[in-house]
Amino acid sequence: MGTTQLEAVPEPKYWHLKTVLGRALDSDFAVGEVLPNERELAARFGVARATLRQALEQLELEGRLQRRRGVGTTVAPPRVGVDVSTTQHEWPGAAQDAWQPIDSTTAPAPAGVARLLETEAEEAVHTVRRIRMTHGQSVAAELLYVPSSSVPELSAIDAPSGPARARGILRELQRLGLDGQDRAVELGSARADDAKELDRLPGAPVLVVTTRYIVAGRTAAVSVATYRADTCRLTFGDSGDLEISDQQPQARRAS
Amino acid sequence: MGTTQLEAVPEPKYWHLKTVLGRALDSDFAVGEVLPNERELAARFGVARATLRQALEQLELEGRLQRRRGVGTTVAPPRVGVDVSTTQHEWPGAAQDAWQPIDSTTAPAPAGVARLLETEAEEAVHTVRRIRMTHGQSVAAELLYVPSSSVPELSAIDAPSGPARARGILRELQRLGLDGQDRAVELGSARADDAKELDRLPGAPVLVVTTRYIVAGRTAAVSVATYRADTCRLTFGDSGDLEISDQQPQARRAS
Repeated sequence: MGTTQLEAVPEPKYWHLKTVLGRALDSDFAVGEVLPNERELAARFGVARATLRQALEQLELEGRLQRRRGVGTTVAPPRVGVDVSTTQHEWPGAAQDAWQPIDSTTAPAPAGVARLLETEAEEAVHTVRRIRMTHGQSVAAELLYVPSSSVPELSAIDAPSGPARARGILRELQRLGLDGQDRAVELGSARADDAKELDRLPGAPVLVVTTRYIVAGRTAAVSVATYRADTCRLTFGDSGDLEISDQQPQARRAS
Repeated sequence: MGTTQLEAVPEPKYWHLKTVLGRALDSDFAVGEVLPNERELAARFGVARATLRQALEQLELEGRLQRRRGVGTTVAPPRVGVDVSTTQHEWPGAAQDAWQPIDSTTAPAPAGVARLLETEAEEAVHTVRRIRMTHGQSVAAELLYVPSSSVPELSAIDAPSGPARARGILRELQRLGLDGQDRAVELGSARADDAKELDRLPGAPVLVVTTRYIVAGRTAAVSVATYRADTCRLTFGDSGDLEISDQQPQARRAS
C-alpha cells in the first residue's frame, strides 16, 4: 500500500479515501489479510481517524472489508450468490429446501406480522425458526409465521415445540394448495437472536426478505428471512445464476 | 418521550437503547418531526453520546429515522414499496417503463461490467443513464450497459450522446428477441453521482440491483440500478403488492 497523500478534491474526503483504499485492496492485499490498525492507516494516508473510519465503513457496506472482534479488519472474500428465486406454488419445507428447521413456538404474532396475516391480535400463531446454510456457514435466519387456523389438523401432534413440531407444521403446509407468493426485500439491522445465529453483532446490516404465502385469496403464512448483507448477494431469475463477479458493485462501476 | 434510565441488560447497551427509542418514536413522535439533538437525547436516556449515536444509526438502517443536513434527525415515513418484478421477455424502455432516460455516453465498460458482458476490454459500450421517479421523488438511478455489438444498427443515428441517443439505444433493444433475464440484489454504498441524483450523501446505503439480459444464450445488456435503501422496499411477485406495513422489519418482529 502506498503512502500517497490525498489531494484536495471536490467530493467528500472519506469518499475519495475510500476509492484510494479500494484500489489498494485490489492491488496490495489478499483475501483474509488483516489490515494495519486505524492509527497506522490514518498516518499512511495523511487523514484524520474519523475520515479513515468513514471510509472503512463504506468498504464494509460494500462487502470489501469485514470487521471481526479479536481479529481486526480483514479483506473480505467476494460475496456469495444465494438463490432466493422461488417456485410460485411450492411451500417452505418442500424437497430440496435449503432451510433447516431448528425450533418452533406458538404465541400471538407481533403486531406487524398479525397485520400482514390479517389475524386477530390474540390468535395463536405458530412460529417456525429456520436457518439457511451455504458452504457450511449460516447465511440467513428465518421466522415463518403460520396462524393456527392455516394448519387446523396440527393439534393432533404431540410435540408442543422444538424441531419435531417445526417439521410437523411444515408438513401440514404442504397439504394446502398454494396460489402464489409475493415478497419484498429491504435493508434492516440484525436482531440480537438473528445476529447470534449469523455470527454478527446485533445491529449489523442485513437484507430482510418478507414473503407472503397466498391460499384462496388470503395470507396463509408469512416468512421474515434475514440474510447477512456483508457476505450475500440475493439472486433471482430463471435464466441460470448471475455469475459471481470478483468485484463489488462499487468497483464494478467505478473501476 | 420519557426520561427512563436504562437498566443493566445482557445485550449491548446501544441495542437496548435502540429498542427503547424505537418505542418512543411509535408513541411520542409524528412522521417528519425533528428529534431533540444528540446531547439532549443522551442526557434524557442517561447514555454516552457514542451509545446514542450507535442506536440512532441502527434506527436509520431500519428506515425509522432520516438524517438530513441542515434539518437534523427526523422521524421517517414508512418505506415505499417499489415494484422490481419484471416481465421476463420485456426490455428496459418498453411501454409503461417507470424509468426516464436522461443521458447516454459511449466508452469501454468498467472491468466488472465487461466481464459480465463478456466483451473485450476495448469494445465500445453504450451507457444509458436513467432515473426512476415515484411520487415525484427519484428513488433509483441506473446505468444500463449495451455493447455496440448488441445494437449494430445504432450507428446510423445522428445524436452522439444525451437523452435522444439514450432513447435511440432503448428503441434498438426492442428489436432483439429477449430470452430472459436474471438479477441479483445486494447492499452497496451510493457513488457520488448517484448520491446526487438520489438526494443522499455519497456512501449512503443503497440496494444495488444487477440485471443481466440474455439474447441467444449470451448477455446482450447489463443494468446496474441503485435504489435508496432508506426509503425503498423492493417488491417482487405475481400475487399483487405486498401490503406496506407501518412498521419496519425490526418492529414487525419484535413489537
